[in-house]
Amino acid sequence: MKYIIVGGVAGGATTAARLRRVDEEAEIIMCEKGPHISYANCGLPYYIGGVIKERDKLLVQTPESFGSRFNIDVRIHTEVKDIDATNKKVKIYNSRTGETYYETYNKLVLSPGASPMRPPIPGIDSPNIFTLRNVQDTDRIKAFVDDNEPHSAIVIGAGFIGLEMAENLHRRGVKVTVVEAAEQVMNMMDPEMAAQLHQHFKEMEVALYLDDAVKEFTPDGHQLKVSLGSGKKLKADFVILSIGVKPDTRLAQKAGIETGERGGIIVNEYLETSVKDIYAVGDGIEFPHPVTGKPSLAFLAGPANKQGRILADNMVYGNLRKYQGSIGTAIAKVFDKTAGITGLSDKALEAAGLPYQSTIVNAGSHAGYYPGAMQMVLKVSFHPETGRLYGGQVVGYKGVDKRLDMLAAVIKKGGDIYDLQELEHAYAPPFSSAKDPVNQAGFNAENIIKGLFKPLSPYKFHSREKENTFVLDVRTPEEFQLDHLDDATNIEVDSIRDNLDRIPKDKKIYIYCGVGLRGYVAARILRQKGFNEVYNLSGGLKVCKDAIA
Amino acid sequence: MKYIIVGGVAGGATTAARLRRVDEEAEIIMCEKGPHISYANCGLPYYIGGVIKERDKLLVQTPESFGSRFNIDVRIHTEVKDIDATNKKVKIYNSRTGETYYETYNKLVLSPGASPMRPPIPGIDSPNIFTLRNVQDTDRIKAFVDDNEPHSAIVIGAGFIGLEMAENLHRRGVKVTVVEAAEQVMNMMDPEMAAQLHQHFKEMEVALYLDDAVKEFTPDGHQLKVSLGSGKKLKADFVILSIGVKPDTRLAQKAGIETGERGGIIVNEYLETSVKDIYAVGDGIEFPHPVTGKPSLAFLAGPANKQGRILADNMVYGNLRKYQGSIGTAIAKVFDKTAGITGLSDKALEAAGLPYQSTIVNAGSHAGYYPGAMQMVLKVSFHPETGRLYGGQVVGYKGVDKRLDMLAAVIKKGGDIYDLQELEHAYAPPFSSAKDPVNQAGFNAENIIKGLFKPLSPYKFHSREKENTFVLDVRTPEEFQLDHLDDATNIEVDSIRDNLDRIPKDKKIYIYCGVGLRGYVAARILRQKGFNEVYNLSGGLKVCKDAIA
Ligand SMILES: Cc1cc2nc3c(=O)[nH]c(=O)nc-3n(C[C@H](O)[C@H](O)[C@H](O)COP(=O)(O)OP(=O)(O)OC[C@H]3O[C@@H](n4cnc5c(N)ncnc54)[C@H](O)[C@@H]3O)c2cc1C
Ligand SMILES: Cc1cc2nc3c(=O)[nH]c(=O)nc-3n(C[C@H](O)[C@H](O)[C@H](O)COP(=O)(O)OP(=O)(O)OC[C@H]3O[C@@H](n4cnc5c(N)ncnc54)[C@H](O)[C@@H]3O)c2cc1C
Ligand SMILES: CC(C)(COP(=O)(O)OP(=O)(O)OC[C@H]1O[C@@H](n2cnc3c(N)ncnc32)[C@H](O)[C@@H]1OP(=O)(O)O)[C@@H](O)C(=O)NCCC(=O)NCCS
Ligand SMILES: CC(C)(COP(=O)(O)OP(=O)(O)OC[C@H]1O[C@@H](n2cnc3c(N)ncnc32)[C@H](O)[C@@H]1OP(=O)(O)O)[C@@H](O)C(=O)NCCC(=O)NCCS
Repeated sequence: MKYIIVGGVAGGATTAARLRRVDEEAEIIMCEKGPHISYANCGLPYYIGGVIKERDKLLVQTPESFGSRFNIDVRIHTEVKDIDATNKKVKIYNSRTGETYYETYNKLVLSPGASPMRPPIPGIDSPNIFTLRNVQDTDRIKAFVDDNEPHSAIVIGAGFIGLEMAENLHRRGVKVTVVEAAEQVMNMMDPEMAAQLHQHFKEMEVALYLDDAVKEFTPDGHQLKVSLGSGKKLKADFVILSIGVKPDTRLAQKAGIETGERGGIIVNEYLETSVKDIYAVGDGIEFPHPVTGKPSLAFLAGPANKQGRILADNMVYGNLRKYQGSIGTAIAKVFDKTAGITGLSDKALEAAGLPYQSTIVNAGSHAGYYPGAMQMVLKVSFHPETGRLYGGQVVGYKGVDKRLDMLAAVIKKGGDIYDLQELEHAYAPPFSSAKDPVNQAGFNAENIIKGLFKPLSPYKFHSREKENTFVLDVRTPEEFQLDHLDDATNIEVDSIRDNLDRIPKDKKIYIYCGVGLRGYVAARILRQKGFNEVYNLSGGLKVCKDAIA
Repeated sequence: MKYIIVGGVAGGATTAARLRRVDEEAEIIMCEKGPHISYANCGLPYYIGGVIKERDKLLVQTPESFGSRFNIDVRIHTEVKDIDATNKKVKIYNSRTGETYYETYNKLVLSPGASPMRPPIPGIDSPNIFTLRNVQDTDRIKAFVDDNEPHSAIVIGAGFIGLEMAENLHRRGVKVTVVEAAEQVMNMMDPEMAAQLHQHFKEMEVALYLDDAVKEFTPDGHQLKVSLGSGKKLKADFVILSIGVKPDTRLAQKAGIETGERGGIIVNEYLETSVKDIYAVGDGIEFPHPVTGKPSLAFLAGPANKQGRILADNMVYGNLRKYQGSIGTAIAKVFDKTAGITGLSDKALEAAGLPYQSTIVNAGSHAGYYPGAMQMVLKVSFHPETGRLYGGQVVGYKGVDKRLDMLAAVIKKGGDIYDLQELEHAYAPPFSSAKDPVNQAGFNAENIIKGLFKPLSPYKFHSREKENTFVLDVRTPEEFQLDHLDDATNIEVDSIRDNLDRIPKDKKIYIYCGVGLRGYVAARILRQKGFNEVYNLSGGLKVCKDAIA
């Protein structure tokens, strides 16, 4: 059996390695158009930032090491230019020798990845504008920073890679400005969750321009002028363009392989493309989202690796294993904070037309009485009746990754908020609380489904009609004194039962507290004491203040 | 509706709080025989060790704060002495006033917890022998350490609490010796996993006596002499006895409530005892294990809290919610290491008579190229054909809690090793690898089920018959030179294909490498090159050395 693999990194190399482990006799040729295979894409920003010190560490395998361990014919500088599916052969171009040749295959695997978007903005071809996808891009950016010791950079696009680059350039002493066309960073997250990062950027003295798109780049001496849609003009020594990537489908499209509405190569659950004996994995593919069932893309290393292994097995043993799709679990360290998402945000649920409800829980990374606990904000989105878990978002300092993993485990299996309650986590004081934040989110969500309380998002809370609402601050008088909403009345939760007469029955009651818990307890008392329109501010005052800041 | 709750800590107080939130009008009396409610049992060792500095932090709620927030009649120093189930009343004793009185109930909840075992060893009543269960015990031990500045302590029993006490006393400058009757610490774990802690104790200069039980305590001046079964005699300023706890069923048994073979109060899935309108939660109950179906105990705060909430709802809304049982997820920080288990160990599977297979994976806490990654050892046990996941054990420095939580999520839902593969974890270099250690364990387990390689436990590897086995070290010559097994031949994995003639076909091939991965790759090559009896050392050389040390 002769396999040709196009692309030698996450999806391609993993397919090759597993293929060899299950079929020692196969002929495996892996073509990579660049000079490197098996590199740590995800580590590239950290190498630029000097966190990862040795360039060698980025190269998980070299063509030589990989070739000898797995007896694979690794060809670098080797681009697959065309596919002749009828005759099962590919046209190959070696950019070093200039040579073009043909190679036949029995099975062909495409793992071409994705390419950074470079829209036709005037001036986009200026030399000081960089994108980051591979080791060569990394070398270019790193050399620029090392050689020129630039003072300032503008990062355009505040997705995961943009934010990682902002942090890493900041670490190099570069004054960083982030420009984002959306109203928030990390656009896959909901705004009140992303807003917590906005605050953190301020703390880190990274300027943030939101809701503002680049209109033009103009060289200005050795610098670049960046003109924004709002009319603002920024200037910096260089620009990182990280406004997203798109599946690299050029080769596939030329060969008549079907691509989809999201722009990826369409594969079925066995990772077969529309053309017989041609398969695809990685950033290039389009596949139904496990929650929405709609075509979706996932630019993630975990899925690419896992697909590679499934595909290798299916090619060798027959189609025994189905790929289940990616729920888009993603995480980024952003300076001292960490933010991530798994499954769908409210925004995405809205767009998909699915009915949903959501809630925010504020909880400690571990037991409050054990030193070092840090607050985290955890949002879950779920079906308003069945409680099926649709998505989770977490922002905090510590233990964010763990909660995302727990949420992802439930979402991936089609579980619900009751499953969140039942998660039997490992608890000792340094690690969690007797009820983990994810359990609390499950409890909280059940309370909403059962109608025990009505949650209110920070934005709805903020845009309240002042005449018809009674705003109730249930924190202690000391907390109230430090800081409160203008129209709030303070009745501490523990004395509400004795002060019911101070609360009007003909208005909506909007309760808030620090994080949402005391507000919930207060809401329960009022609901049972005959107050019907009682709402509790989701996530409490801190989340709200960040959200509307 | 009038509720009486017996016990005011994890199970009891949580039941009370939830009861109030769902029924504002109920009468709720919570009786606690001690002077404190709602204390952080799990934090007690850390307060003694000075990690938690303020005693107040241990008291999550006081009778006053709890009473006023939840409008609950909290009675401390108040022991429920007898239950008259026919007339639905209890006999109550106030240890402060000496008063005895009766109180009727509609529903009675038992959350009496468990009591430390104190076997009738001669001398066990010496004043310097302490057990640790509640705040009073804590005050006693802390005062002893503060006042006497003792030089030495013997901790008897190396379960979670024993080990936490060892660490915390060590932190106080006390020279600690740990004595354990079993052959290993943390007896719920498998020996090769626990063995990694044995090594760590040596590094921390904590003496460890295993497989040795205490026979006698003899006062010796202000010290205590501890005589062991082996004849060894130890001496120390004081002793912490932490050899386990048993459900506190005295009250229940007097009332004719059924207890089970494991010694706990039997409850059904609605947490009802055998007597109508009497319910039980917490350490006191016995419930079928979700994996074995056999009666089991769980001395864990998470389950106690979660049961309390389920029970409150069932009492108010009717039996709508089933308790699903605990898989015994537990974790402890042990000096710089962390160790934990979820589900069943091989030992427990053996005892339960379930067919099982297991494997050990050694993996980094996050991507190796990002600084700070630490190795962890992760063991999974599963059904040898279906792959149903039975248990997981993890020992390491970082990220142990996270992997236990991911494993627990799968075990709790009756999932299998393929679910482990599919876990879509949050990956960026500071948090994990593209394939998380739990994914790797899933892959590895599948390979075993499919017969792709045969794993060998460190003990089986160690007790090999030297004549019939060819031991193959597939690490680099440099690694081999530093340290290898006496009877090993070194052929690096990458050159095996060229050295097949050096490997005998008529012997069992026992392969080892550093952590198990290269050994597996080598095993695959040999298997496909016609070698049939090929075994790979599970977890590699390091785990093996610790296990047999
Ligand atoms: C800076 C950065 C940070 C990232 N961080 C994370 C992270 O933290 N977490 C995460 O999950 N994911 C992260 N990712 C995404 C992750 O790297 C990708 O999802 C993953 O690499 C996709 O694998 P792939 O095989 O599809 O594509 P790639 O790994 O990009 O490999 C595709 C390869 O195919 C080659 N190729 C394309 N066409 C041809 C052709 N015709 N002939 C020969 N070769 C060809 C390309 O040169 C390329 O090397 C990051 C990506 C980048 C760029
Ligand atoms: C030192 C220590 C460390 C621990 N660490 C952890 C950990 O890290 N993780 C973890 O998950 N678990 C840990 N635990 C276990 C956890 O604390 C228990 O599982 C949990 O507290 C059990 O809850 P419970 O309500 O059943 O019992 P408890 O919390 O013990 O409460 C029972 C209460 O009932 C009272 N009582 C008993 N009988 C009567 C009566 N007749 N009348 C009135 N009152 C009565 C007792 O005085 C006691 O206060 C630890 C326990 C200890 C002691
Ligand atoms: C380097 C690369 C080719 C390795 O691929 P791989 O060999 O499939 O992956 P790993 O090295 O993690 O090894 C996994 C295999 O080892 C096995 N394994 C892992 N730990 C093991 C252990 N302790 N004992 C035995 N086997 C083990 C797994 O079961 C798996 O084998 P299988 O797939 O046959 O079941 C590929 O990961 C790669 O190119 N990575 C860099 C690119 C990339 O992923 N970038 C994005 C992230 S930055
Ligand atoms: C103190 C104690 C009585 C509190 O019990 P509790 O009120 O049920 O628990 P919490 O304070 O965690 O609050 C949980 C409730 O708040 C809700 N909640 C949590 N975070 C919330 C948020 N941000 N917004 C709204 N509601 C929130 C949960 O839904 C849950 O309510 P529910 O059970 O009605 O659904 C009990 O935990 C206790 O006694 N603890 C100490 C003893 C112990 O557990 N020891 C062992 C561990 S050391």
